[in-house]
Amino acid sequence: MKALVYNGPDQKNVEDRSKPVVGAPTDAIVRITKTTICGTDLHILKGDVPTCKPGTILGHEGVGVIDSVGTGVTTFKPGDRVLISCITACGRCELCRKGMYSHCTTGGWILGNAIDGTQAEFVRIPYADTSLHPIPKGADEEALVMLSDILPTGFECGVLNGKVQPGSTVAIVGAGPIGLAALLTAQLYSPSEIIMIDLDDSRLAVGKRFGATASVNSADGKAAEKVMQLTGGRGVDTAIEAVGIPATFVLCTEIVTAGGTVANVGVHGVKADLHLEKLWAHNITITTGLVDTVSTPMLLKTVQSRRIDAAQLITHRFKLADILKAYDTFGKAADTKALKVIIEA
Amino acid sequence: MKALVYNGPDQKNVEDRSKPVVGAPTDAIVRITKTTICGTDLHILKGDVPTCKPGTILGHEGVGVIDSVGTGVTTFKPGDRVLISCITACGRCELCRKGMYSHCTTGGWILGNAIDGTQAEFVRIPYADTSLHPIPKGADEEALVMLSDILPTGFECGVLNGKVQPGSTVAIVGAGPIGLAALLTAQLYSPSEIIMIDLDDSRLAVGKRFGATASVNSADGKAAEKVMQLTGGRGVDTAIEAVGIPATFVLCTEIVTAGGTVANVGVHGVKADLHLEKLWAHNITITTGLVDTVSTPMLLKTVQSRRIDAAQLITHRFKLADILKAYDTFGKAADTKALKVIIEA
Amino acid sequence: MKALVYNGPDQKNVEDRSKPVVGAPTDAIVRITKTTICGTDLHILKGDVPTCKPGTILGHEGVGVIDSVGTGVTTFKPGDRVLISCITACGRCELCRKGMYSHCTTGGWILGNAIDGTQAEFVRIPYADTSLHPIPKGADEEALVMLSDILPTGFECGVLNGKVQPGSTVAIVGAGPIGLAALLTAQLYSPSEIIMIDLDDSRLAVGKRFGATASVNSADGKAAEKVMQLTGGRGVDTAIEAVGIPATFVLCTEIVTAGGTVANVGVHGVKADLHLEKLWAHNITITTGLVDTVSTPMLLKTVQSRRIDAAQLITHRFKLADILKAYDTFGKAADTKALKVIIEA
Amino acid sequence: MKALVYNGPDQKNVEDRSKPVVGAPTDAIVRITKTTICGTDLHILKGDVPTCKPGTILGHEGVGVIDSVGTGVTTFKPGDRVLISCITACGRCELCRKGMYSHCTTGGWILGNAIDGTQAEFVRIPYADTSLHPIPKGADEEALVMLSDILPTGFECGVLNGKVQPGSTVAIVGAGPIGLAALLTAQLYSPSEIIMIDLDDSRLAVGKRFGATASVNSADGKAAEKVMQLTGGRGVDTAIEAVGIPATFVLCTEIVTAGGTVANVGVHGVKADLHLEKLWAHNITITTGLVDTVSTPMLLKTVQSRRIDAAQLITHRFKLADILKAYDTFGKAADTKALKVIIEA
Repeated sequence: MKALVYNGPDQKNVEDRSKPVVGAPTDAIVRITKTTICGTDLHILKGDVPTCKPGTILGHEGVGVIDSVGTGVTTFKPGDRVLISCITACGRCELCRKGMYSHCTTGGWILGNAIDGTQAEFVRIPYADTSLHPIPKGADEEALVMLSDILPTGFECGVLNGKVQPGSTVAIVGAGPIGLAALLTAQLYSPSEIIMIDLDDSRLAVGKRFGATASVNSADGKAAEKVMQLTGGRGVDTAIEAVGIPATFVLCTEIVTAGGTVANVGVHGVKADLHLEKLWAHNITITTGLVDTVSTPMLLKTVQSRRIDAAQLITHRFKLADILKAYDTFGKAADTKALKVIIEA
Repeated sequence: MKALVYNGPDQKNVEDRSKPVVGAPTDAIVRITKTTICGTDLHILKGDVPTCKPGTILGHEGVGVIDSVGTGVTTFKPGDRVLISCITACGRCELCRKGMYSHCTTGGWILGNAIDGTQAEFVRIPYADTSLHPIPKGADEEALVMLSDILPTGFECGVLNGKVQPGSTVAIVGAGPIGLAALLTAQLYSPSEIIMIDLDDSRLAVGKRFGATASVNSADGKAAEKVMQLTGGRGVDTAIEAVGIPATFVLCTEIVTAGGTVANVGVHGVKADLHLEKLWAHNITITTGLVDTVSTPMLLKTVQSRRIDAAQLITHRFKLADILKAYDTFGKAADTKALKVIIEA
Repeated sequence: MKALVYNGPDQKNVEDRSKPVVGAPTDAIVRITKTTICGTDLHILKGDVPTCKPGTILGHEGVGVIDSVGTGVTTFKPGDRVLISCITACGRCELCRKGMYSHCTTGGWILGNAIDGTQAEFVRIPYADTSLHPIPKGADEEALVMLSDILPTGFECGVLNGKVQPGSTVAIVGAGPIGLAALLTAQLYSPSEIIMIDLDDSRLAVGKRFGATASVNSADGKAAEKVMQLTGGRGVDTAIEAVGIPATFVLCTEIVTAGGTVANVGVHGVKADLHLEKLWAHNITITTGLVDTVSTPMLLKTVQSRRIDAAQLITHRFKLADILKAYDTFGKAADTKALKVIIEA
Repeated sequence: MKALVYNGPDQKNVEDRSKPVVGAPTDAIVRITKTTICGTDLHILKGDVPTCKPGTILGHEGVGVIDSVGTGVTTFKPGDRVLISCITACGRCELCRKGMYSHCTTGGWILGNAIDGTQAEFVRIPYADTSLHPIPKGADEEALVMLSDILPTGFECGVLNGKVQPGSTVAIVGAGPIGLAALLTAQLYSPSEIIMIDLDDSRLAVGKRFGATASVNSADGKAAEKVMQLTGGRGVDTAIEAVGIPATFVLCTEIVTAGGTVANVGVHGVKADLHLEKLWAHNITITTGLVDTVSTPMLLKTVQSRRIDAAQLITHRFKLADILKAYDTFGKAADTKALKVIIEA
């Protein structure tokens, strides 16, 4: 079968690989129908993710059809259409039982990282019963690809951790795909104000289209002042960090109001300053975290009932054979205006 | 009347001051019967608290008897015995209505800071209805002095923010009065393990006596390793920072387990490093905050029903006339083994 | 001044009464600009509310302008435009401090019940600082009248108690003004399905227009079956009772799914059956309660930011001089299609 | 093997049955070392539980040793010591993923009910990975038998549903084994007052020994009045129903204070009156439910750390061969003072 293989920093190839087979009784083999590329795949290709060894098939998102299952799988049978979660959950360790699938002792984020992923014709999914979701009849499968990672990540790490509430004021720093996923899912809780902050006016325009009530271009280094002006000097109840660098994290701690929350979603490579000399008395909460994907069944319902229009995140479409072009388009997002690209297998 | 007055950095005197009078209709004048000294008073005397101007009477803790009340005060009348909250709450601003008394727009921590405090024969308490608590008949008033600040601070900023739960594992960094207050109140939620961490063996011994299940002397710089050993490599569910320096804060972020919380209680003078390059995927929560004292009525019940033995925090007793000796004893705690000193007015 | 006075069962008159004056230092006198009639006013007129004595001016809703204030009032001054809460809160008793204003030891629902109300040119508001809300500039004051009672009641007693969540399934039994207020405010949490249940097709049509995803006419006694069909045999996560009779309450307990909540909003005159022989193992929650109006500031923000269109509840308008006509119109809602009527003073 | 078999109403026998075998890949066979009898077993023997067919081996509690496992079981291997949960959880259905194991679509309470149970030498446990718990080395296995059902039931259905909090006032109606389990686990949250209510003075004496702060004999029909006296007319924050008849449920609704919770634990055979004509405005919550046993790992920690002394619930011990005597002793608890009886297999 065809697969996109990571062969070390800056090296990726479309290769012919043998079709995966059921190993453990809890495995399923899924024939991929649609997959996509994530910012994290680009991180791997920069060599930033040491758990991902050369030779690994990339990809942790996608929808497909069950090809075969192990003897211990009870929820799915060949032919069932399924949504693949980016997080593999055994469902039986202490952390899984608490819903902390991201820290499953034998799972977590392993797909397209520690084991072969979804940018291929077939993929082996461990713990299939608790790592796949049935697709309801008549669902828009392209839209559902957004539910593998990006929507639950924006929702759980940004919106839920950030305790977005009706009437509250939210700032989202970073209008890339993850920041926009937070923007879409934040509206499930009807905040009064959502301020989008980015360096790129065209992404800010997308933010306005997706429901932001205000936008701030931070290129002049005055984002904190502008947010304070927009909020009458009060600051925001929730500041969602969706970039992953120290400056944007510090910005979040500057604009959060007393009693508010900074929800970190960005993937950070270096430490940041925490100004405890100001913050110790400011009654704030800071959260970090990988997505658990516990909210996926709920998000699936909101997509089905059209409370969220997930499909608007999709900007480009490719065939699996053209996945290198898809990487090119996604990697040059500033030029191509790419958000999420669909790859049809 | 006699009062302990802050006269600038390193300068304090017992002075004769005129008895305060009711200004606003919401004021009460309280005759102090017992007060105490807080670590924050020492901070003021070092010149670290710019909101406290020379000439201010110090002290934000105490119990006493209502001397007179303004026309708008409906809860208290002269002769009522009252507990003074370290936080002044108007009870009517948006933040007070949310229970965030610490950030009351016209109150907060002002007593013995922006206005004259309790280390005197009388004190004026603004917004008396919502800043004083009635003392039940037969209560041990000395023990109740611990409810003005130290017990609600340890409980709200450490235990509640830290989400201490039955069966959980807690580390408290710093076995001073505030760390010990967190230790006493943490036990209201029956955690399985409470690990006390400090540089001073005699304070660790007090910790054991107060209910800690393990103690770690951090003098050798290996506290994180030791906590990991004590917890089977897992770390703690709650790490309470009760010192206020970067090293102890960083230690807390090193020992907290995935899904856990770092609850900052310490007063910090400088920034700390936040190692987001490790923590971004570790699903932790960090909280900061001044006490709101919303839990005071509940803590009063637990002290009354003997679930907490607050009196064991008291190590020394003085008369108001000898308050300079009291400061001396409290300031040299390493030698005198002082925790809280009672000053009788 | 002119006022609508309750003179015993089935007797109401427009009378000339003397203008109220500030009694306690915490009082304010408000000149009413707009008020309305509530279903509870009709209950009083039937003689169902023994706390309301003949001679009382009715009404517990409205907006107006501060005429004068007592010496203890710090938040408002003459000329300020204010929203009147149906619940009077002292802000200082143990229950108020917990946000349970409905059970304030000296307040609660007293307006137009134990004391004179708002269907008059002027009204005395006790504890003005904590029982009135400032009206933002440029607000639609007519819409804000809906925030005195009906919207917070639907929201707090129905939506919040009922734990409506993104993706959840909600049934609202009763499409009168309160049920419709629950419908409008439930959408702040983006449930997937909202099923409206009533006997009156025209009210069900209003429900559809206000955002219900399905409606069930319960006239044939088969509402439970129909809801089960609509939910694939699962039942609803939240069942909101907005009628106040045994049959509708029992219906709610029949359609709630395991893990779900029955939130009672209706005013009941008699007991209902609780089928514990079925429900004991069904893991449900039942809530009851008067509104606390703690959510009013938040709802005001959502109305201001147009997340809720409160004005669509208003169907008729009258002058205070014509308030008897307004009662007539409101009392014959089945014919007049009245929801809320605005009375201009 | 020997087993206690239900052969229809009032008929039970010790029979020789063939040892169970692994059916599904997710099954485990457990050799029972200790089991016990539950009040529900007596209900079955009265013919009250139609899901339990004649010929079924009774029992849903116990500890033992893994004898064999199916190919899909990954957590346990032969020789492992395990605690059996009374609730069987597939861990993969929508309800299990929410932690509602009691309503697992293919599990729930089936052991000793729809399938053969634990009062035997061996038992087949479906979904072993998520229905068994590893026993820590050195644990008191007799005490752990209390964790199969009675302690999590008292804790989850009584204490957690009842929102017992530090400083709160709790009433427990019924001082049988379940009521006492609620009493033991309520103390994990340090309520100020726990009032035990029962008809039997000797059980009330046990309650006092287990930590109740007051007791009320309800034989004179004046329990509600007495509780009101004990609480200064306020009532209780939490009323736990641990009997299962209308009178005790109604009592709970009479003594709960505004803002409080009635947590039903009792198994009811008939409906009860719900006095909505009083309760509609009283802001209370009522909960019902079977245990989910999600708290078992936490309770195991609190038993291990001696925060709970589970062993004190054990009053008698028998060999499996003498299980009929054990039933006799347990069935005549008023005379024998039996709480829980241990049966050694």
